[in-house]
Amino acid sequence: MDRVAIIGASMTQFGQREGEWVLDLLAEAGIECLEDAGVDADEVDHLYVSNMASGEFEGQTGVPNALAHDIDAMPAYTQRVDQTSSSGGAGMYAAWQSIASGASDMTLLVGGEKMTHRTTGEATDVIASLTHPVEYKHGVTLPSFAGLTARRYLEQFDAPRESLAKVAVKNHRNGVDNPHAQFQKEIDLETVLESPIVADPLRLYDFCPITDGSAALMFCPESVAQEYTDDYALVTGIDGATDTHVVHERDDPTVMGGVVDSGRGAYEMSGLEPDDIDVAELHDMFTILEFLQMEGLGFADQGEAWQLVDEGYTERDTGELPINTSGGLKSKGHPLGASGVAQGVEIYEQLVGEAGPRQVDADAGLCCNVGGFGNCVITTIMEAAR
Amino acid sequence: MDRVAIIGASMTQFGQREGEWVLDLLAEAGIECLEDAGVDADEVDHLYVSNMASGEFEGQTGVPNALAHDIDAMPAYTQRVDQTSSSGGAGMYAAWQSIASGASDMTLLVGGEKMTHRTTGEATDVIASLTHPVEYKHGVTLPSFAGLTARRYLEQFDAPRESLAKVAVKNHRNGVDNPHAQFQKEIDLETVLESPIVADPLRLYDFCPITDGSAALMFCPESVAQEYTDDYALVTGIDGATDTHVVHERDDPTVMGGVVDSGRGAYEMSGLEPDDIDVAELHDMFTILEFLQMEGLGFADQGEAWQLVDEGYTERDTGELPINTSGGLKSKGHPLGASGVAQGVEIYEQLVGEAGPRQVDADAGLCCNVGGFGNCVITTIMEAAR
Repeated sequence: MDRVAIIGASMTQFGQREGEWVLDLLAEAGIECLEDAGVDADEVDHLYVSNMASGEFEGQTGVPNALAHDIDAMPAYTQRVDQTSSSGGAGMYAAWQSIASGASDMTLLVGGEKMTHRTTGEATDVIASLTHPVEYKHGVTLPSFAGLTARRYLEQFDAPRESLAKVAVKNHRNGVDNPHAQFQKEIDLETVLESPIVADPLRLYDFCPITDGSAALMFCPESVAQEYTDDYALVTGIDGATDTHVVHERDDPTVMGGVVDSGRGAYEMSGLEPDDIDVAELHDMFTILEFLQMEGLGFADQGEAWQLVDEGYTERDTGELPINTSGGLKSKGHPLGASGVAQGVEIYEQLVGEAGPRQVDADAGLCCNVGGFGNCVITTIMEAAR
Repeated sequence: MDRVAIIGASMTQFGQREGEWVLDLLAEAGIECLEDAGVDADEVDHLYVSNMASGEFEGQTGVPNALAHDIDAMPAYTQRVDQTSSSGGAGMYAAWQSIASGASDMTLLVGGEKMTHRTTGEATDVIASLTHPVEYKHGVTLPSFAGLTARRYLEQFDAPRESLAKVAVKNHRNGVDNPHAQFQKEIDLETVLESPIVADPLRLYDFCPITDGSAALMFCPESVAQEYTDDYALVTGIDGATDTHVVHERDDPTVMGGVVDSGRGAYEMSGLEPDDIDVAELHDMFTILEFLQMEGLGFADQGEAWQLVDEGYTERDTGELPINTSGGLKSKGHPLGASGVAQGVEIYEQLVGEAGPRQVDADAGLCCNVGGFGNCVITTIMEAAR
């Protein structure tokens, strides 16, 4: 069977995009991706839009249709893919399926969200609408879960508080070299450790920001890809899995079941193992999540990810396995529907050698996109075609 | 390649479901579909939820995860499919792709919407958020477009006003035999023609109601289907297409471009022609749309569908091509995300001989699910396996 290739990528500036709406951001990324891939809009068969909440944030629905119109892709089939904060990864899965099933020979995936025009409280309320109503009623939000989980992790595995801060410092350092990142600014350990407490032990700099932005990828069968370019990436493993959204029902809060299950599926499909992965984008919405995903994906044993971070194993220029070379959600920003697609953009650029100052040596890369507090996870493995 | 089969179906009572939320309705349909198919929840690989607006209607997002939890389908991959009022058809396309791509061997699709707890004004505002903002600002809503289009159609093709009313009368008559329909009540031409004007020339009985409800279908490869049953349906043609959401930009308002394009794709894929279709479910949100879809799908030439309706060609028990044997959106109701799935349920039941008093003789059936005012359309062709 023809394998599924990615032949183009783009992302807009992430950050505060005043006066622009999600449709503007999606169109900007979509048009740039068409140009990057060298594909005309009328060659697009399917157009997927990863977006969690344009209705709640902007009072606008039917955005995929409006996008097809605005980028001249009609009569391409369009659909919105929503899987809360993992909508981008879910979009990659939908795009992959559209090609692998033969339904489409050219699929444009565009993810985006416009959030900063709402107050932090309003944005948080929209995001919190994905949590279990009873837990939410008792005041447990996603940041609360992160705080509780971080406390448990540090105690159970004798990890120093500084190890979490090192994740933030590393990802901010990587973000300096990403011109599209919301924060292109180095921070030091003290910045994190002296920032205001949000959910003890986690502080402001353990959290990703609220962000506007969009990112896009172009998918097609490998045989079609070869008509356009020699430098493409292949999606060789992809799988998604759920864990309970009732977080207090989970057996071990330091294990993300959805990460383990989706990772296992993606590895099996690709025939690769954790050791074969050269670069990874993990969903560092909260610093603690980078540890849990490293462990769930087999990059570290349970309770030992913090040691690898401590030793510099995940550093971009000197580490064995660079993680979040893009800057991660922490410094690049987290426009919900865009984030999983932007992870794919970074891995694609690393594999085709277009990552500029962030470039590492990589034949295989992995993204892990997390919805809720691990409620749904999509893991994607890509390999360079060369 | 293994063909894609449907081995089970269900739908809840459509209507006003007081005290229940969309999650309750989805779980009810989902569990019943598992039972109908004879599939255990832990055999489900992918779970798609067709839903337009749980966030806007109920302040609840992340519903697919909650559903996977509540019907014991974890760690099945879940995702919400939104394509406004064609979310159900889009869900059938997503489910088809999940099987045809090999990503899943057992996909449960559940569509649902809970709307009646909101006022008609509030519900209309949510639906209208899919229209073009400038058109909406000038007061043109979906019912207005329907009225304008109906007036144009009647004038251009010398069609009598009564021909539209006959669509409503036929679909209400069919709905009497559907125990899940919102209205199980015959009406006569006078009921329609003397009901209050909504958007001249269309009156109250030319419009579908606001509805709560859910419907579900179970998809798997044909080789897997044969392990469960001898009576299954095959999805042999499916395609989706967009038309501009800026309705005033369309060349001819009496032609639904998305219907024509998606229909062409579905026919080509199945190798069938309009004459081969024995039964069809069309998206009669407004009576005029039944004419336009009959013409767009090649069941009638442009401007002539009204004559076929007039002659009884689309009657259930006596016509050549029974249309909306379920009662259609008109009498069955239109819970946005459920409607396209419920169309699939009716065609499946007709093909496997489970339609009870509504049963017609059919080897091949077609559904056409419309988002917006034809902004996005998915056409699905199914054939009996026997």
